[in-house]
Amino acid sequence: MDTKVLRLRGNADKRIRAGHVWVYSNEVDTLKTPLTGFTAGDQVVIENAAGKALGTAFVNPNTLICARLISRSPKTFLNKKQIQNRIECALRLRSLNFALPYYRLVFGDSDALPGLVVDRFDDVCVVQISSAGMEQCKTAIITALNNVLAPKSIIFKNDGKMRRVEGLDTYVECVGENCDYLRVVENGVEFVVPIQGAQKTGWFYDHRVNRAMLQPYVQGKRVLDLFSYVGGWGLQAAAFGAEQVVAVDVSAGALEVLNENARLQGVEARTSTIRGDVFEVVEQMLQDKEKFDLVIADPPAFIPRRKDIKAGERAYGRLNEIALRLLSREGILVSASCSMHLEANRHIDLIRAAGRQVDRFVQVLGRGHQGPDHPILPAIPETDYIKAVFVRSLPSV
Amino acid sequence: MDTKVLRLRGNADKRIRAGHVWVYSNEVDTLKTPLTGFTAGDQVVIENAAGKALGTAFVNPNTLICARLISRSPKTFLNKKQIQNRIECALRLRSLNFALPYYRLVFGDSDALPGLVVDRFDDVCVVQISSAGMEQCKTAIITALNNVLAPKSIIFKNDGKMRRVEGLDTYVECVGENCDYLRVVENGVEFVVPIQGAQKTGWFYDHRVNRAMLQPYVQGKRVLDLFSYVGGWGLQAAAFGAEQVVAVDVSAGALEVLNENARLQGVEARTSTIRGDVFEVVEQMLQDKEKFDLVIADPPAFIPRRKDIKAGERAYGRLNEIALRLLSREGILVSASCSMHLEANRHIDLIRAAGRQVDRFVQVLGRGHQGPDHPILPAIPETDYIKAVFVRSLPSV
Repeated sequence: MDTKVLRLRGNADKRIRAGHVWVYSNEVDTLKTPLTGFTAGDQVVIENAAGKALGTAFVNPNTLICARLISRSPKTFLNKKQIQNRIECALRLRSLNFALPYYRLVFGDSDALPGLVVDRFDDVCVVQISSAGMEQCKTAIITALNNVLAPKSIIFKNDGKMRRVEGLDTYVECVGENCDYLRVVENGVEFVVPIQGAQKTGWFYDHRVNRAMLQPYVQGKRVLDLFSYVGGWGLQAAAFGAEQVVAVDVSAGALEVLNENARLQGVEARTSTIRGDVFEVVEQMLQDKEKFDLVIADPPAFIPRRKDIKAGERAYGRLNEIALRLLSREGILVSASCSMHLEANRHIDLIRAAGRQVDRFVQVLGRGHQGPDHPILPAIPETDYIKAVFVRSLPSV
Repeated sequence: MDTKVLRLRGNADKRIRAGHVWVYSNEVDTLKTPLTGFTAGDQVVIENAAGKALGTAFVNPNTLICARLISRSPKTFLNKKQIQNRIECALRLRSLNFALPYYRLVFGDSDALPGLVVDRFDDVCVVQISSAGMEQCKTAIITALNNVLAPKSIIFKNDGKMRRVEGLDTYVECVGENCDYLRVVENGVEFVVPIQGAQKTGWFYDHRVNRAMLQPYVQGKRVLDLFSYVGGWGLQAAAFGAEQVVAVDVSAGALEVLNENARLQGVEARTSTIRGDVFEVVEQMLQDKEKFDLVIADPPAFIPRRKDIKAGERAYGRLNEIALRLLSREGILVSASCSMHLEANRHIDLIRAAGRQVDRFVQVLGRGHQGPDHPILPAIPETDYIKAVFVRSLPSV
């Protein structure tokens, strides 16, 4: 076997030994193993500075994260058999947790499949590949999914921004039967989402457990769903008994899908949509003295990169504050975030600050995280990114 | 009205204005308002250094926390009416969340009732008072509870250590009908717990939502419940379908109650108990090469005070490590903690370290917190104390 070796510098193995699975390009001993000697996607053996093998990894010489661990054994590479084993292991976890076949089947590093995401919609799998190494395993992934699940369609939704960073082109491709719509059942509520124009894989399974937490709070209530997308939160609130749901989003396409789903679910009489910039819409609602019993604020990531933390936190803070102002007495705020860079305790502190700003006594009733189909790797805080904080807002005591 | 005033120093009002509700004794302007001028339990007006009223508070001149905010209005004191209003407000939250009358009805500062805890067991209320000010409101509390719930019995379980700090004596007293046993229904499982010898109020409602999270993982499985107390976790695992539950605790009395409840629930054939020091028992199990599919480790607070953090974290780490060693392939660890001083992210990091120590690939499936009957005050991290992390343990990849 002519396996290439990537040699680390000094103590650069420490983080790996502590459980992490990424190597940064400045941690490589480029004298011994120049990055120019690798092709994006190579599977290599990683060694520490003393030449001791730490395991195997995908290499990409052109990215800040230049290696992603595949195995802690120097003999294990990602071949067809390994990929199938790991998908089966991931499936066993999902099968324990979910009675119906709708979930994130593979969550990248957290399922030991770096750069691979698979969302399962019954007999349709939507796949996203975001590392050069995993792209080279595409045929093996198709074979493994066919062996394990025999899906009707495998859709490669390879149009994410991260692909350009890895030097990969972007495309959408369907393997198997042609498929235009995804059918999802989440918390007992059925949705149909067109693939054309869909965000990410088409559905955000990561908030499923948090959406289920709406149930005690929406019966007979007036609900506002901000940044609604296709209504994952709002239409579930309607299904759980909300008297009225107002969904706000900037995307006309998303709201069209939402309205279509409202009809499908028979809740269209209790659902309405407003298209517009969310901050502008809520400012208008404040002026009109509108009140809601429950406000869901689940915006897109306001902190896409670490350097956006300050501006992003300000945006979350402002959103929480406006949402609190729109709440009726003893109303409930669901303050959500999918920014990995918004630290969970900082999120709570933003809620504290917003509560003081509007002179409310705020109680945190629940701190929701991503569901079990998005396992967290404890060594990588970035894998722990979803937050949904349920807050009751009382008049100041 | 001859209301006493407590004057703060310099910027000591900043934390209060930011949402906190405690004043430390070194924050008082003792020249203007000497602490010797107050009696433990006084209700006073708090002023900032400039003489601006910030609100009202309970004072205890003998404790580190010398004042606890009652209201942000200088005119609101805790009288019968206020206490009843606040209990009713607390009850509205619990009624939304729980179909059955078993929950923590009042959670101290988080329900704007500093030093008061009320656990409801249908028509029995167990009350714990831990501040001198609240002790003076005892009659008002009884009246309010009678007006709101008309319970059969109100049991003052005023035997906690914190009372001595506040200069209060310890006692257990029953108001109303005599009552020796508490009946609890949690997650559909019924327990009977004798009040004599019970820990705290007799039941730990704070882990209810986390115990419910056992359901997907225990069907047909072998479960180990460490620090079982009366079986809150273990017997619910049995009720959810575990094939075998082994409970370990140092208290013979607690295990007797557990066995009695196993009989009551009809799961005695699948339940066994081991009395002993938990660390000694699990070491023996390791030597005997015992394996479990799911291990629950919910010890008493290993970090009672801030200065115990180092030793406490070591103990949590060791416990996690042993629990992982006892797990069968793809087993589940429930790593719980009720130490407010164990920071949630630090807890995750201890799980990372334990995983590496025993060479397992560990995935965090869920991060559980206290239930909605234990609301968190975002300004006071100490009110956010419960952690239950669900972990799947795989062979190292």
